[in-house]
Amino acid sequence: MRHIFKKHNVILAALLLTSANVYSWETMPENAPTPADNPTTPEKVTLGKMLFFDPRFSSTGTVSCNSCHNVMEGGDDSRAFSMGVHGQLGGRSAPTVWNSAFHSVQFWDGRAASLEEQAKGPVVNPVEMGMSDIEKAMDRVRIIPGYKAYFDAAFSGSNTMSVDNAARAVAAYERTLITRNSPFDRYINGDKKALTEQQVRGMGLFQANGCQACHSGPAFNGPAMPAGTGFYSKFPTFADSPYTEKYDLLKDKGRADVTKSDADLYQFRVPTLRNIADTAPYFHNGSVRNLNEAVKVMAKTQLNNDISDNDAVDIAAFLVSLSGEYPEMIMPRLPPTPGTTILMD
Amino acid sequence: MRHIFKKHNVILAALLLTSANVYSWETMPENAPTPADNPTTPEKVTLGKMLFFDPRFSSTGTVSCNSCHNVMEGGDDSRAFSMGVHGQLGGRSAPTVWNSAFHSVQFWDGRAASLEEQAKGPVVNPVEMGMSDIEKAMDRVRIIPGYKAYFDAAFSGSNTMSVDNAARAVAAYERTLITRNSPFDRYINGDKKALTEQQVRGMGLFQANGCQACHSGPAFNGPAMPAGTGFYSKFPTFADSPYTEKYDLLKDKGRADVTKSDADLYQFRVPTLRNIADTAPYFHNGSVRNLNEAVKVMAKTQLNNDISDNDAVDIAAFLVSLSGEYPEMIMPRLPPTPGTTILMD
Repeated sequence: MRHIFKKHNVILAALLLTSANVYSWETMPENAPTPADNPTTPEKVTLGKMLFFDPRFSSTGTVSCNSCHNVMEGGDDSRAFSMGVHGQLGGRSAPTVWNSAFHSVQFWDGRAASLEEQAKGPVVNPVEMGMSDIEKAMDRVRIIPGYKAYFDAAFSGSNTMSVDNAARAVAAYERTLITRNSPFDRYINGDKKALTEQQVRGMGLFQANGCQACHSGPAFNGPAMPAGTGFYSKFPTFADSPYTEKYDLLKDKGRADVTKSDADLYQFRVPTLRNIADTAPYFHNGSVRNLNEAVKVMAKTQLNNDISDNDAVDIAAFLVSLSGEYPEMIMPRLPPTPGTTILMD
Repeated sequence: MRHIFKKHNVILAALLLTSANVYSWETMPENAPTPADNPTTPEKVTLGKMLFFDPRFSSTGTVSCNSCHNVMEGGDDSRAFSMGVHGQLGGRSAPTVWNSAFHSVQFWDGRAASLEEQAKGPVVNPVEMGMSDIEKAMDRVRIIPGYKAYFDAAFSGSNTMSVDNAARAVAAYERTLITRNSPFDRYINGDKKALTEQQVRGMGLFQANGCQACHSGPAFNGPAMPAGTGFYSKFPTFADSPYTEKYDLLKDKGRADVTKSDADLYQFRVPTLRNIADTAPYFHNGSVRNLNEAVKVMAKTQLNNDISDNDAVDIAAFLVSLSGEYPEMIMPRLPPTPGTTILMD
């Protein structure tokens, strides 16, 4: 171990000399990448917010998109595995919906090429919203009289109340969920008092340890990729640490479960580090409760770095500085079904 | 049956002649009754809204007050029986939180004397929020660093983060949940076009049938009572109709389960009819899906009136006119627990 650590330090020094400035620091842009065929409009955002918060499209009427991706919090549910209808547990930790539009693919395994595609998944997942059929879920939307005007305002054509349009609206809303003006962003923009000394130290350690090899770009989730093409990393890349067993890191095969290819074994989408302080517990399996520990696990399993507790704390302090401001939002009003209910069970 | 019906019509005619104007129509006031020891302040409302929406005080982190009393909808959950942690079912249908401050007691059986007292109940109900102990729930609030400033702003004293203060804040928020300016209110205030002809007809039938014997006052839930004293009615009062079996009306013993007194058998708090169109399914057991049918059941079981389908439809149309405007609200922002989660399971 000591030998590896020493060897690593030599490599690290070389990295510092040759490539420390390869990754520039990027602030959060005002707008997220948006597909040409679904430009964001206020009408879509209004409708998408309503659909996002409406629990009536789950089998029990108790689970909405917001249940696991709570925009009033960090965009997730504070849980290791999310809980869907009838208290059933999902197999992975809910990723944050905040800044999710900066991901070029969706889900931990990247199986959805867009937010539009992603939005349809949980509705028919038996342990999430539990609807048997996406058209049946859409029938519940169609049966609510008040929704039609919102679809007609957001979309053209004679049959605006389609599954695809609902997904487009939800995606348009999600593209507005951007947190900007974090201490980090203000620091990069010239306000040198925006970060504490510890955070500046952590920023240097983040760079020196090579974290940006994966966590680069404005959302700290890797280089800009074409929409639909994911940026993945094998986790654990270095599997021979005690963390592998401690946090059960070889249980979930990652992207290989989707592609059935051994090359994708344990490959996961590199998640954004934006607002990471608000999204514990950490990793695809939510196995790590604490950000300091998550930093140590990442350093060891991804970079084979045994970093000190002090360094981990400093890096975690830097990560806290990536938390931007949550924009104020008006609560949506969900149209009623006057005099009746659409829930059957 | 025919005999009873005839007899009833005679009684009804007498009622029309002698007491039709006993119950005046009252519009919705701007403010709800408020206890002297918990005046509503903006600071309490802000805090109360946060607590109301925060699911982290349920055992699983998935159920907040808003889960069953969804203020984005009609203040309930569209379900017959509410669903709490682990998908467990409660024994009664969630009453709407909208205009709940106009009730002098809370819960269907009136077992809470105030909104403050009510707020503590679901937290420790094993099939609702499922916390083992109210102080343990409060410990979760206390552990969230961002809450303290809100408690200190809302309350005085050295230890503001108490269960009672949390309940006071939630109650203060709930007292702002008032729907005003309904078509009915506008009609009473002089806008004779605010109601349709059918609604005016239904209004007359509502009065002529004697519905106001229970559903009087601005919230249509009975006469003004001292805080803590409930206004109850036996449901079914007339138990010898087919509805008793059809809707299982003798299963739930109502207030007798609380007081253990036979005098309280099948006694339930008279619910508000405000925004009733948005709160299907109906009754304490959510057994009736449709408002027209609910009107017929009430007329028969409470007044022994066999009203026609047409009359029921007209009365239901009038009830729709009691739906006031939902005030626009800013979504609360729930303070994070930076770098960790407070959920343990």
